[in-house]
Amino acid sequence: MIDLYTFTTPNGRKPAVMLEELELPYTIHKVNISKGEQFSSEYVAINPNSKIPAIIDRDTDISIFESGAILIYLAEKTGKLLPTEPKKRAQVIEWLMFQMANIGPMFGQLGHFRNSAPEEIPYAIARYEKETQRLLGVLEHQLENNEFITGEYSIADIATFPWILISPYLVSVDQYINVQRWIETMRSRKAVQIGMAILTPEFSSNYGAVA
Amino acid sequence: MIDLYTFTTPNGRKPAVMLEELELPYTIHKVNISKGEQFSSEYVAINPNSKIPAIIDRDTDISIFESGAILIYLAEKTGKLLPTEPKKRAQVIEWLMFQMANIGPMFGQLGHFRNSAPEEIPYAIARYEKETQRLLGVLEHQLENNEFITGEYSIADIATFPWILISPYLVSVDQYINVQRWIETMRSRKAVQIGMAILTPEFSSNYGAVA
Ligand SMILES: N[C@@H](CCC(=O)N[C@@H](CS)C(=O)NCC(=O)O)C(=O)O
Ligand SMILES: N[C@@H](CCC(=O)N[C@@H](CS)C(=O)NCC(=O)O)C(=O)O
Repeated sequence: MIDLYTFTTPNGRKPAVMLEELELPYTIHKVNISKGEQFSSEYVAINPNSKIPAIIDRDTDISIFESGAILIYLAEKTGKLLPTEPKKRAQVIEWLMFQMANIGPMFGQLGHFRNSAPEEIPYAIARYEKETQRLLGVLEHQLENNEFITGEYSIADIATFPWILISPYLVSVDQYINVQRWIETMRSRKAVQIGMAILTPEFSSNYGAVA
Repeated sequence: MIDLYTFTTPNGRKPAVMLEELELPYTIHKVNISKGEQFSSEYVAINPNSKIPAIIDRDTDISIFESGAILIYLAEKTGKLLPTEPKKRAQVIEWLMFQMANIGPMFGQLGHFRNSAPEEIPYAIARYEKETQRLLGVLEHQLENNEFITGEYSIADIATFPWILISPYLVSVDQYINVQRWIETMRSRKAVQIGMAILTPEFSSNYGAVA
């Protein structure tokens, strides 16, 4: 059994989609980051960086933070969604890193300066808008000749999807037609639908339950 | 033989340190990002995200971008610096992700608003100073009981070191005494010294040469 500590944010939904794809039993523990629950001493013992998500695998007693590390761990535990053949594997890991080091932090900064900063700072908004558009352009190009980001469905798609889904709230996305097609493909997956719905009234799963 | 496309920046030095540790032969190709060489069509064919570093492994014909993906690839190619035992492996990968998704992007934003932005924006500087200090505090805590970040020397240390080395230019670091101790331990490694010196007159290696 996997304990999943999470909340209704892009990073928080990634491990839930993964667990649904893998059909692994899991228990959801809500960490309400809008109430500062990520800073409780109990939670910091699980994630010293005081952010969601984190998991504890009760089968192995392994505790992991950073969504990208969680995805690699679960993929290796089950032998799914991360190829072992070196070339394909390198592609999946590089695009996972592209999400973790670029899409996540930069979309996140745009969201901050757009919605949360106490003052309007045009320079910062323009900086992160430009970077968000550039990153969407890189993804668009990659999806021109690939159904999924690296060809076959993988943890790179699972990591990227929840962030792309919020991108229309940040910048205009109509021109990214291959990204739009990929969103529809992702959305049609049952595991994606269920994993994205954690901690909402619509959530209904054969594998996961709220603690 | 490994072709390494890189420049004299924290991310650019990571793969050089790794290649020195692994004693793998490599050829350095300078991509001068201050002249915009990362945007050439030749280079974008190697890294569609137009950033350094990237490698091409000529033994396997595999091309990889994102420094974290390069470190995992080289570790798995050689069976070194990334344990296979699941618990230790998860720790190394989570701390690698901590660097890739937190230390790198956030220190980078502070550097931008401190040194490169055309106007002084106190709110942004304060935001990223606070986050940089917080992240150094998380690392300090982790190093209290560990010689290296996850106990034994690994790719998590190699990824983190070049960024920590520039941190005194960003914030005051005197209070992080375990970080200081770890810096000295890292600095005493021959491979670290050589890898950090790529593309400077001091560079002298048995494994790497500039193209
Ligand atoms: N790189 C981390 C990012 C985690 C992250 O930023 N989590 C956010 C929610 S999406 C959070 O916990 N924010 C609360 C805080 O920063 O205090 C990951 O991918 O797991
Ligand atoms: N997450 C990437 C970051 C790479 C990165 O930001 N590289 C910088 C230099 S440290 C770069 O190429 N900047 C030039 C640009 O952004 O145009 C990695 O770790 O490889």
